[in-house]
Amino acid sequence: MKPSNPKGMRDFTPALMCKRNYVFGILSDAFQNFGYMPIETPAIENLSTLSNKYGDDGDKLIFKILNSGNFLANLDSLSNTDYLKLTNKISNKALRYDLTVPFARFVSQNRNEIVFPFKRYQMQNVWRADRPQKGRYREFYQCDADVVGTDSLFCEVELIQLYDRVFTDLKIPSIIIYINNRKILSAIIELMGVEEMFDEIVILLDKIDKVGFEVIREKLIERKINSDAINILEKYLSIVSLKDLRYLLKDSKIGIEGIDELQFIFNSIQITGLDSSKLLFNPALARGIDYYTGSILEVVTDKIQIGSLGGGGRYDNLTSIFGLQNISGVGVSFGFERIFIVMQELNLFPADLEKNIDVLFINFGNKEANYCLPIIKKLRSKNISSELYPSSVKLKKQMAYANNKGIKYVVLAGEEEILSKSLTVKDMKKGDQNKMSVEDLISLVL
Amino acid sequence: MKPSNPKGMRDFTPALMCKRNYVFGILSDAFQNFGYMPIETPAIENLSTLSNKYGDDGDKLIFKILNSGNFLANLDSLSNTDYLKLTNKISNKALRYDLTVPFARFVSQNRNEIVFPFKRYQMQNVWRADRPQKGRYREFYQCDADVVGTDSLFCEVELIQLYDRVFTDLKIPSIIIYINNRKILSAIIELMGVEEMFDEIVILLDKIDKVGFEVIREKLIERKINSDAINILEKYLSIVSLKDLRYLLKDSKIGIEGIDELQFIFNSIQITGLDSSKLLFNPALARGIDYYTGSILEVVTDKIQIGSLGGGGRYDNLTSIFGLQNISGVGVSFGFERIFIVMQELNLFPADLEKNIDVLFINFGNKEANYCLPIIKKLRSKNISSELYPSSVKLKKQMAYANNKGIKYVVLAGEEEILSKSLTVKDMKKGDQNKMSVEDLISLVL
Repeated sequence: MKPSNPKGMRDFTPALMCKRNYVFGILSDAFQNFGYMPIETPAIENLSTLSNKYGDDGDKLIFKILNSGNFLANLDSLSNTDYLKLTNKISNKALRYDLTVPFARFVSQNRNEIVFPFKRYQMQNVWRADRPQKGRYREFYQCDADVVGTDSLFCEVELIQLYDRVFTDLKIPSIIIYINNRKILSAIIELMGVEEMFDEIVILLDKIDKVGFEVIREKLIERKINSDAINILEKYLSIVSLKDLRYLLKDSKIGIEGIDELQFIFNSIQITGLDSSKLLFNPALARGIDYYTGSILEVVTDKIQIGSLGGGGRYDNLTSIFGLQNISGVGVSFGFERIFIVMQELNLFPADLEKNIDVLFINFGNKEANYCLPIIKKLRSKNISSELYPSSVKLKKQMAYANNKGIKYVVLAGEEEILSKSLTVKDMKKGDQNKMSVEDLISLVL
Repeated sequence: MKPSNPKGMRDFTPALMCKRNYVFGILSDAFQNFGYMPIETPAIENLSTLSNKYGDDGDKLIFKILNSGNFLANLDSLSNTDYLKLTNKISNKALRYDLTVPFARFVSQNRNEIVFPFKRYQMQNVWRADRPQKGRYREFYQCDADVVGTDSLFCEVELIQLYDRVFTDLKIPSIIIYINNRKILSAIIELMGVEEMFDEIVILLDKIDKVGFEVIREKLIERKINSDAINILEKYLSIVSLKDLRYLLKDSKIGIEGIDELQFIFNSIQITGLDSSKLLFNPALARGIDYYTGSILEVVTDKIQIGSLGGGGRYDNLTSIFGLQNISGVGVSFGFERIFIVMQELNLFPADLEKNIDVLFINFGNKEANYCLPIIKKLRSKNISSELYPSSVKLKKQMAYANNKGIKYVVLAGEEEILSKSLTVKDMKKGDQNKMSVEDLISLVL
């Protein structure tokens, strides 16, 4: 049997894990530094929790779990050949598709154990039965930070600072954080007189980067939108200052509300400053996710064409699906796998990340090995990672092992070292070799 | 819609996560300190990778994933009402059931990228459609360390030290590491003249703790085993010294091999010493897992009746299922969820584990908040976790938030502090309140 992974699923070798853990570490350090606390939800949710949350296309990509035991027992007949209908009869559980819907369920379900405003972070895998391609997998990590239970705009300010902090720490250059507000989009669409087309226009705007405005104009003409309305949209998209925007939307209550929110956020960010990112108003930013109701955010780097490295926004009604009303929330997501690709391509991982074994003791035979064991124990207790090569094979092979594993020091202890109660230590980087005591070795490594 | 988790699945609140992360941290630190490197495998494996590895009972507990898209398309007819046969037609993927089989697949599949002997650790969830009960869940963590590619007994020595290290660090008292060797069991069963009953007797021995020898004697009489054979088993089970065992098995080549292996391990452990655990030979230790071929280990604590906190052993043929021959391996598993229960029941978690937010800034209004923002940024850059209460609600409510979240210091900065460029800082533990500069606050917290 030839071993393989299912399509879109990956194994992670130690070399990859060390790099992934480096990014996870920077993320969780930043989350905690900003006062966010970790939670986890189970990989498996009730299918009813996930269904009808991600649109028709999303629903199809949810991995469903076959009911255990005799899943046919409760079926009247198997003559039903409509697989969509049959699915719900033989499957009542599914794999987590994102972190936001399970989080909304979590908040609603655990409302009595939570201190509101509740700031949580969550770094877990999600699964989507999507067609795999470069940078797109069927199992991948999402890393989210959210605040629920307050509509304060200081949360948006904090999350923008969080983006800045993380991307600064990761050393990803040329980070731009785009911001817009769904209320502004609502006002524009109102001004165009096509309120009923809100979702449609949001989806069109999401594509403007790729297709340009002329394609959108054609689509709108096709949909019988009059040229005045299209001109309003074109004018809106050319706006760069909030002042001009305020003039355009001066008669719209909701529009002014959106602009005031943006202005507040820009003011506070100006007071605190950002370390390496820019915050820019982007009128075309729409984010095609249903549940956003206020601020929306998206992060890109100018250095590499890979799409967004993260995004988020405010949602006023997400937990109400699960029975908890009037809980406004705002959150951002870090696109872990894309961030990882950017880090790889721009060579941003520190050297020697995988080199976390300090000392290998060469095995010259049982007697010599038993001489080494208490020394290894001592080193380990001093937090120096150490190991004995398990068998007394040729020295060359043991040295090759040390090299391949990136071990920093190799200890050779034979007859002579045992007699003089010493160690011969080879520095694998410098290449030199010295005789020393155990205490000397400890000082050398620490 | 009332939110809920599927049966046997759990949410983890921040309070629980902090405790779980504490245990994970001790485990991964110890693994790395001993030269083990992290790997991960996907949650979803091909069903063929997992099938027929865990016995008939195990197979039934594997969570199967419905094929995506129209899973009925390739079925000749739906008249088949045998759900076991139908399963394989509508599902070709399943959730990870343990870490060992995916690890064997991983080693075989990635053999060219691996440096042998390969020491890996892996801490990931596994899923089993088992009946939930106290301490048994349908999603739970396993934490394994294995060495593959060598039959050196120094690996067993190292893994016993690893157990000692972890349980010492966790402060779990009265740890006993039981050891035996499958070769010794083989020799005894040979001496009894019932080689064909090896598996059966292993399963009986596994239950001896619970049922006592007399029940086993009855079972063996039922199975028409003669009394001489039963007496040999009884005598074997009463043996405490390897010397007596060596005499009993003096004519068995494989028995002497097993005893020599045990003796080697005891010698090396005596040389290095164990910090808080005892290593004991246990003739009744059998471990009912098919793939073990040499040393077997099991860990218990005398302090609490909960069963084993870990177990493991040597397997000579595990990767050969996946086409990689002659790779001996040995590994141990830490029973994370049971360890967690023991830690809870014995009150072994350090106090204040959840208290990792250092400073809350009270929000007295936008002007005051904007005065605090650059100070918060400065604190965060000094690795002091800090946050602004998002809205200017009543002071009492903000203080309650600080209390509930276990925040160490609360900063009050109003009109007066802004004028004097200072902060009023309340120490939440001591209860006292002092005016100071930002630099003073930094020194106070660090």
